[in-house]
Amino acid sequence: MKKNIITISRQFGSGGRTVGRMVAEKLGIPFYDKELVEQISLESGFAPKFVEEHGEHAPGKTMFSYAFAPQGVPGVMNGMSTADFLWHIQCSTIIQLAEAGPCVIVGRNADYILKDRPDALHAYIHADMEQRADRIVRLYGESEKSPQTRLQEKDKRRALNYQHYTGRTWGAAENYDICLNTGKIGIEEAADIIVSLVKE
Amino acid sequence: MKKNIITISRQFGSGGRTVGRMVAEKLGIPFYDKELVEQISLESGFAPKFVEEHGEHAPGKTMFSYAFAPQGVPGVMNGMSTADFLWHIQCSTIIQLAEAGPCVIVGRNADYILKDRPDALHAYIHADMEQRADRIVRLYGESEKSPQTRLQEKDKRRALNYQHYTGRTWGAAENYDICLNTGKIGIEEAADIIVSLVKE
Repeated sequence: MKKNIITISRQFGSGGRTVGRMVAEKLGIPFYDKELVEQISLESGFAPKFVEEHGEHAPGKTMFSYAFAPQGVPGVMNGMSTADFLWHIQCSTIIQLAEAGPCVIVGRNADYILKDRPDALHAYIHADMEQRADRIVRLYGESEKSPQTRLQEKDKRRALNYQHYTGRTWGAAENYDICLNTGKIGIEEAADIIVSLVKE
Repeated sequence: MKKNIITISRQFGSGGRTVGRMVAEKLGIPFYDKELVEQISLESGFAPKFVEEHGEHAPGKTMFSYAFAPQGVPGVMNGMSTADFLWHIQCSTIIQLAEAGPCVIVGRNADYILKDRPDALHAYIHADMEQRADRIVRLYGESEKSPQTRLQEKDKRRALNYQHYTGRTWGAAENYDICLNTGKIGIEEAADIIVSLVKE
């Protein structure tokens, strides 16, 4: 079956988002990354920044409190924790987007949410620590923490969130149809390989 | 740098060996799978069948005994257990093969042994349990155990061996440059993608 829905999971700093954008441009189909955050924000009532920060991170202590319940939508959380409510909205938004037609979806555990769609291709993009560190400093600048520490923290949070909501191991090859090391293969080449798989 | 050495790690029943053979044929370079077993057998003095069964499996109780010491080569094991001696020979054989020129090497943790070679491309081939089960019954026939049990046992033993000798997690995408699900992508297509990466 032709693959129309492409999910891109990525290590922070690996260039996975850029790969996703290139794939969408080459195929002429919608690309959901920040757009997905905005959609989830609209559906949930949470601020986009909150969705962005918490949508792929492990539920922490504050996430289990109800202090962040969206205003103006009393009762919609239906007894769920903030984190679980966000996950619920994220799932339904991603399912709706996939239903609406061909697209590229970056992050937010879309590989798991759409795992049973035969028309979906699931890709994982990664790179070595050193190359990712160079990339985040180049793109996002320096910070108080070393780039390695920032990457390790982000990796850990994504892995915990993924494990918590999917029961699977983050970065295990068997979750994906194709995994590519952009540090070795290159970002544009990675996009080309994915496009060629979709076109076949 | 051009990639001349291709290592193929694979889940049992995923068609990874076939992918490796196709890549070697398409590139016109040597293919080491059974040939590697024979080479290790020659170097170590162990029977090929013993090398094949134990070269990718976790060291079990019998492997820590010295009962299997090759005859005619007293003292060469130098105080090592049988399993460690086999690993030692396996490493040196694989390093020698890679030194000798372009080739495809299937299995035997070659991805780890050659991880620091900039001219090596490391691939991991996997497929869903159901497709692997179909394949092993078709290729190797029925057995007393269900194909799922055979696969689970083999997966577990390979994972333990890999973890023991490399300290890494078997099947983690970050160990490889490319991982492909042949159940979704196809065996010939997987070989073509790898060939295209090597030719670039």
